[in-house]
Amino acid sequence: MPESEPSGPVVVTGGAGAIGSVLVREFLARGREVRVIDNLSGGRRDHLPATNGLLSLTVADLKAPGQYSSVLEGASELWHLAANSDIRRGTANPRLDLDEGTFATFQLLEEARRQEVRRAYFSSSSTVYGLASVRPTPESYGPLEPESLYGAAKLASEGLFSAYAHTYGFRVHIFRFANIIGPRMTHGVLPDFFAKLRADPNRLEVLGDGRQSKGYLRTEDCVAGMLLAVERARAPVNVFNLGTRDLISVAEIARKVVAAHGGRARIEFTGGERGWAGDVPQAFLAIERMQALGWVPQHTSAEAIDRTIAEMVAAERPA
Amino acid sequence: MPESEPSGPVVVTGGAGAIGSVLVREFLARGREVRVIDNLSGGRRDHLPATNGLLSLTVADLKAPGQYSSVLEGASELWHLAANSDIRRGTANPRLDLDEGTFATFQLLEEARRQEVRRAYFSSSSTVYGLASVRPTPESYGPLEPESLYGAAKLASEGLFSAYAHTYGFRVHIFRFANIIGPRMTHGVLPDFFAKLRADPNRLEVLGDGRQSKGYLRTEDCVAGMLLAVERARAPVNVFNLGTRDLISVAEIARKVVAAHGGRARIEFTGGERGWAGDVPQAFLAIERMQALGWVPQHTSAEAIDRTIAEMVAAERPA
Repeated sequence: MPESEPSGPVVVTGGAGAIGSVLVREFLARGREVRVIDNLSGGRRDHLPATNGLLSLTVADLKAPGQYSSVLEGASELWHLAANSDIRRGTANPRLDLDEGTFATFQLLEEARRQEVRRAYFSSSSTVYGLASVRPTPESYGPLEPESLYGAAKLASEGLFSAYAHTYGFRVHIFRFANIIGPRMTHGVLPDFFAKLRADPNRLEVLGDGRQSKGYLRTEDCVAGMLLAVERARAPVNVFNLGTRDLISVAEIARKVVAAHGGRARIEFTGGERGWAGDVPQAFLAIERMQALGWVPQHTSAEAIDRTIAEMVAAERPA
Repeated sequence: MPESEPSGPVVVTGGAGAIGSVLVREFLARGREVRVIDNLSGGRRDHLPATNGLLSLTVADLKAPGQYSSVLEGASELWHLAANSDIRRGTANPRLDLDEGTFATFQLLEEARRQEVRRAYFSSSSTVYGLASVRPTPESYGPLEPESLYGAAKLASEGLFSAYAHTYGFRVHIFRFANIIGPRMTHGVLPDFFAKLRADPNRLEVLGDGRQSKGYLRTEDCVAGMLLAVERARAPVNVFNLGTRDLISVAEIARKVVAAHGGRARIEFTGGERGWAGDVPQAFLAIERMQALGWVPQHTSAEAIDRTIAEMVAAERPA
């Protein structure tokens, strides 16, 4: 008997963030009711369309289920995208990712269990692998050795999603993201470089030796992949990498950003293999498992970077 | 330049437990100073030799570092064995393993970081694998899909140990234990079966269909393996399975226990592949990585079970 698709309300945590707000728009375009929970620490109200009968925003702390319990009532699926999005902050404050990652995830899953919302999807990260000895790195790679507290919290949350699937009958999808880029980002290499050039147009400091190389996936490609996987993969626990087939180095990104700003800034590298303690210098995800479902990213890493730089430059231009 | 061995005090959390107390005795036999931290929830004071100049016991809650901060002062290594040891309790109380596992581990690692104790060893578990599709299961197996909240907390703690190694310069060892059996156990299949036969000598109820099959490793073999691995493996993060090369089914263990009690109890199976929600019916660890270091368990699973049953029967006999 073919399973009927859920069509009740969708809950999106972190829905006012850069990735969440794209996912929210996609559901609205499909006529689905969307309920966003966001603490607006990274997300912003104006990342979302105006709320109406189909879209609500609840500003709440995931660690305090009393603040959002009613939002989960009657929902048919839960997308958990909320997290600290600044990996470096977790190195300076080791408690941050434990609280905003692991503990928030636990409280959310408990509330979902109480409300019988048993389809739950999680934005994990390539950081769970640490510096993998096999690259591109498949989902079956192990042992997982996260380097950052952020990665440790993502791994902890993966384990919780898995346990809730097997112990309490959830169906879960775990998506291990490459670096995701697109509009409305508040953290990451492009917002960092743009902020530095605003502060000093003649100099761009790059953390590390610039040879750190990673895959960069556009937000739209990431969201399309998640939606497809949820539709087509139906194990109790489904784990998928979401990335691109090419890499780009930090030095190359720096050159592109400088060129887009007129080309006069001098690029200076602070040196060292890693940009900071906990940075993974090489991250390259195998995406065969997603491709087998029929997904292909529409942008290479280089195209995703170029397009995002162009959008950010256009947004900076005085009106 | 050969590295000098640490010879300062050893801290053992859960040192009053069934595994910890064997490890403590081993260090005392080697003339090392041992400081035990235990909340005595599972462990017992009389599992330890009398405290003296070489052995101290601090009854403390790992979640409250103020209670044991001084214990870590000047220590050269930290063995973190403390945990909830009853997997089923975590299914009924999902917060238990998050608190006593993940959060306790975090607080302990933070205190170790403050005190500059940067060699830390962790008792993880085969439960991080969930029901692995490859058996015997190597350390490189993935993705990790714990079935229990207990397994999720072990995975979360592995991630924390890894992040502390890479971010803060720790050297860590992570040991994924098979079922460990030996004297002084308060949980697990043998204490359960013995308790049931004490309550009703004519009937032994077995959870599940009895076909769950796992490896059982004697405590002494487990402790010898950990000590060897710490001596010989020196990566920032070292992950090792500790198990046996043979399996034994729960039905077989039940028959052995009944035989040791005179053979008159009727064995009744509750049915179903799993003993309880979150139980992993088949667990079989590959131990080639430990064997390559020169470790061989001195007991098969069947021998470990036989020896432990004999010890438990002897302990039950009226004096």
